Amino acid sequence: MAEGKDRGGLRRLEVAALVLVVLLTAAAGLAHYLGAPSLLAFSIAALALAGIAWTVSFATEQVGERFGPAITGVLQSTLGNLPEFFVVLFALSAGEVVVAQTSLIGSVLANALLVLGLAMVAGSFRSEGKVMRFGRRLPNDTATLLLVAVFIISLVGVSVAVDDGAANHVKAISVIGAVFLLVVYLTWLIPYLRSDRGPSRGQARLAFAPAATLLLIAGIGAAFVSEWFVAELRPTIDRLGVSETFAGIVIVAIAGNAVENAVGVTLAWKRRHDLAISVIKNSVSQVAAFLFPLLVLCSLFFAQPLTFSIAPIFIVALFLTAIAVWQITGDGEGSVFEGVALIALYLILAVVTLYD
Amino acid sequence: MAEGKDRGGLRRLEVAALVLVVLLTAAAGLAHYLGAPSLLAFSIAALALAGIAWTVSFATEQVGERFGPAITGVLQSTLGNLPEFFVVLFALSAGEVVVAQTSLIGSVLANALLVLGLAMVAGSFRSEGKVMRFGRRLPNDTATLLLVAVFIISLVGVSVAVDDGAANHVKAISVIGAVFLLVVYLTWLIPYLRSDRGPSRGQARLAFAPAATLLLIAGIGAAFVSEWFVAELRPTIDRLGVSETFAGIVIVAIAGNAVENAVGVTLAWKRRHDLAISVIKNSVSQVAAFLFPLLVLCSLFFAQPLTFSIAPIFIVALFLTAIAVWQITGDGEGSVFEGVALIALYLILAVVTLYD
Amino acid sequence: MAEGKDRGGLRRLEVAALVLVVLLTAAAGLAHYLGAPSLLAFSIAALALAGIAWTVSFATEQVGERFGPAITGVLQSTLGNLPEFFVVLFALSAGEVVVAQTSLIGSVLANALLVLGLAMVAGSFRSEGKVMRFGRRLPNDTATLLLVAVFIISLVGVSVAVDDGAANHVKAISVIGAVFLLVVYLTWLIPYLRSDRGPSRGQARLAFAPAATLLLIAGIGAAFVSEWFVAELRPTIDRLGVSETFAGIVIVAIAGNAVENAVGVTLAWKRRHDLAISVIKNSVSQVAAFLFPLLVLCSLFFAQPLTFSIAPIFIVALFLTAIAVWQITGDGEGSVFEGVALIALYLILAVVTLYD
Repeated sequence: MAEGKDRGGLRRLEVAALVLVVLLTAAAGLAHYLGAPSLLAFSIAALALAGIAWTVSFATEQVGERFGPAITGVLQSTLGNLPEFFVVLFALSAGEVVVAQTSLIGSVLANALLVLGLAMVAGSFRSEGKVMRFGRRLPNDTATLLLVAVFIISLVGVSVAVDDGAANHVKAISVIGAVFLLVVYLTWLIPYLRSDRGPSRGQARLAFAPAATLLLIAGIGAAFVSEWFVAELRPTIDRLGVSETFAGIVIVAIAGNAVENAVGVTLAWKRRHDLAISVIKNSVSQVAAFLFPLLVLCSLFFAQPLTFSIAPIFIVALFLTAIAVWQITGDGEGSVFEGVALIALYLILAVVTLYD
Repeated sequence: MAEGKDRGGLRRLEVAALVLVVLLTAAAGLAHYLGAPSLLAFSIAALALAGIAWTVSFATEQVGERFGPAITGVLQSTLGNLPEFFVVLFALSAGEVVVAQTSLIGSVLANALLVLGLAMVAGSFRSEGKVMRFGRRLPNDTATLLLVAVFIISLVGVSVAVDDGAANHVKAISVIGAVFLLVVYLTWLIPYLRSDRGPSRGQARLAFAPAATLLLIAGIGAAFVSEWFVAELRPTIDRLGVSETFAGIVIVAIAGNAVENAVGVTLAWKRRHDLAISVIKNSVSQVAAFLFPLLVLCSLFFAQPLTFSIAPIFIVALFLTAIAVWQITGDGEGSVFEGVALIALYLILAVVTLYD
Repeated sequence: MAEGKDRGGLRRLEVAALVLVVLLTAAAGLAHYLGAPSLLAFSIAALALAGIAWTVSFATEQVGERFGPAITGVLQSTLGNLPEFFVVLFALSAGEVVVAQTSLIGSVLANALLVLGLAMVAGSFRSEGKVMRFGRRLPNDTATLLLVAVFIISLVGVSVAVDDGAANHVKAISVIGAVFLLVVYLTWLIPYLRSDRGPSRGQARLAFAPAATLLLIAGIGAAFVSEWFVAELRPTIDRLGVSETFAGIVIVAIAGNAVENAVGVTLAWKRRHDLAISVIKNSVSQVAAFLFPLLVLCSLFFAQPLTFSIAPIFIVALFLTAIAVWQITGDGEGSVFEGVALIALYLILAVVTLYD
């Protein structure tokens, strides 16, 4: 593989960032094992987790560059959800089912409402006529995927609300529903990858071997830091006196998606509207229609199963979010007002969970 | 009326099919009166019912050809629902209100999700760029009609859920709601018939008198076979150990709509996208906004009234179906992914009712 | 300020109307203080209220003309809701929380379903091809505003349904939600005012001073007549034997919006489609996203707080109304059928509340 002149290794800023991530990870480990105050240990773990998410994203970009932008995009969003995947796994193994579920739901809602809203405010504020324009296909496909997820969750929710003895069936229905949801997601993903070459992201500046090694290390790091993060979560919740649902919907969801968040909003600000919408929407649909069902299946190996049976307030919030996001972005246009409306929806939800 | 050269009577295949329907009907009658095992008798009756539905459809086409394609279309979809109409009537008179209701709901859901999904997969798979295109007017009008039906059903559902003493009012509200729904349907139907000349269906090959006679005989046959079908339904449910709702939503709904199903999917496969969408969508809106309210009014003459008060899970399923179908087809485009999503929704619902 | 030749004062019809309003107001006062039968006193107060609403609308037009059409439009719709504002305030101070809430909800539903439906029937009946066309921006923005309001109302509703001890939180959440809703509304309103010059409404025929005086008097009159109207409401409800919710959803809502109603439908009939849609849609979004949250904040000074916690049936009705209105008007086209569908939704709701 010929090394181009742009491939002169990493930029100084990138090296500094990687060093910072290593230091944060070490600090998070020390804080965890030396029994630092939970609030401090939790905060450092959250920062380290965000750093690792960025590292995974960066390394994937370098590895993926060999395969072209489409595969890179998928690798990036899939591996970018690695920290979140581990957080939910560790939460499940620690018996924190509510936190596991609400951090998945919160991830969908934070991306679909808060991040998309911020990106729409940034993007439309900087556009001519204060209207941001983007392709209509992806927002509508994301709406379809969200509606399928909402359909399963709603039917399970109604079954549970009406008939208390449906506990075993909820697990069986969730597993079957998860398989269907994954099939639908893959049916969408494969032609999307084939048809859309996506925007070029410039050239890789790392050779394959070191990039793959970096990815492997970051993946292992994600697993460790996630465990520390989850371990400190319960004492932090008790210390702050917030509800479990607030922790999941707001704290974990924002910490776990900080990087994607920043990327999406920054792209919108730079007037790269389609790419911004693509990063955010893919993140939403991947958590709802890939990560959630995948974790439902994975949880079969745990004592505590993860199911699609969630609290009624989140069923309603997810459904209304799917509708509102479709209504607002389905026409391929965004305004400051629409962005503010999405942000307001997230804040209202955060307030309601705060009082939960 | 001059007989064209294409009018040389029936084709050999059609004669064979008619003979088969007669044999099936006779077999269903024998099985019923001679007390054959319920599963066998039920299966034969289901096949005979599908055969009669085809006969009605075929005879209507021959009769209607004299009046032009628009009237033919209406006659066909209206008379095509004759077997279903009788099944619900006999179910009501047998006191099987749940089966009556769920087979109507199931008919809407099977057509709107399963059949539409299959047609979209077939149609888009065979289209250039894997995208199937069709007019946007009909999907949007169907969405409006479904939303009106869902509005009545949801308000009745909430009234019942909140206040237990609303039983008598549910009947009164259902009757008034049925009248409103029929008015809305007719307001839609009349200009639709006038404006849309529809696609030509070729020439009639049967003279008016024999075609009308065939229609009359098929109508009478539909009444008899429906009675046998319903009579065997209860023992079959008990024998198979499935729930009443599964029987209504899946077995009766698919048996009662098998012909429309096949026609819609075949048309999509032949790239006649608009006609395929028209057959399926008309079937959906006719059951939801014509047959259901009509049967509510007819049931006034029965001991057991049919109302718009249905189980919460079907309210949610109907509502989400209306939303998903509108979201997916309202833009006049269909993809394999969207078809798969619709099919997945139906299968998820079937699984949930199986565990009911 | 130069007086143009068209400014020759008021037309004879307008003077007659103003005299009639004064007489009606006087009659309403007499009926109230002399203890007339409640049904009579209520009817006169309702007529006087409609007259005052017209007077406010007329005076605002004359005052606003100096500032250009956009500001006039806002002034008109804002001050036009003055009688409704007072009715809800007096209802709250009389402890009639259900009537206060349902008259707000009823105002949204009556405008969004009944008035919009009538305007669509009138407008499309008189259009070529029986299809009425209008801009898509406003219907979609109104849908967004309604969805934000519905989001708050639904989350509060679910919280209340699930957890009975959330009473204090409902108030706090409602206050915070009201602030967010007002922010979203203002974010929409300000660019809407700036960008849209709106259609010219001809020239003012009253000088500023008398017009402003007329507005002031009408405002004071609105306060008095609203008090009488509310005072007679309870005896009238008891006399007619209707439910509180029917009174709020149908009687108060129609009486309080009679003028906007007539204006919107008349404009549609005159083929001024965009203006008709604008008057009705602005009325809907203003009550839902401005008047309702404003009154929630105002009610902090009362013993009986107004919250976003409304009866489940109205949550469902509001949500389905938001969806149906978006589905029907979001494409910028209207037909007779769609208008009839909207009217049917309102009538169904009226029937359900009648039996409540």
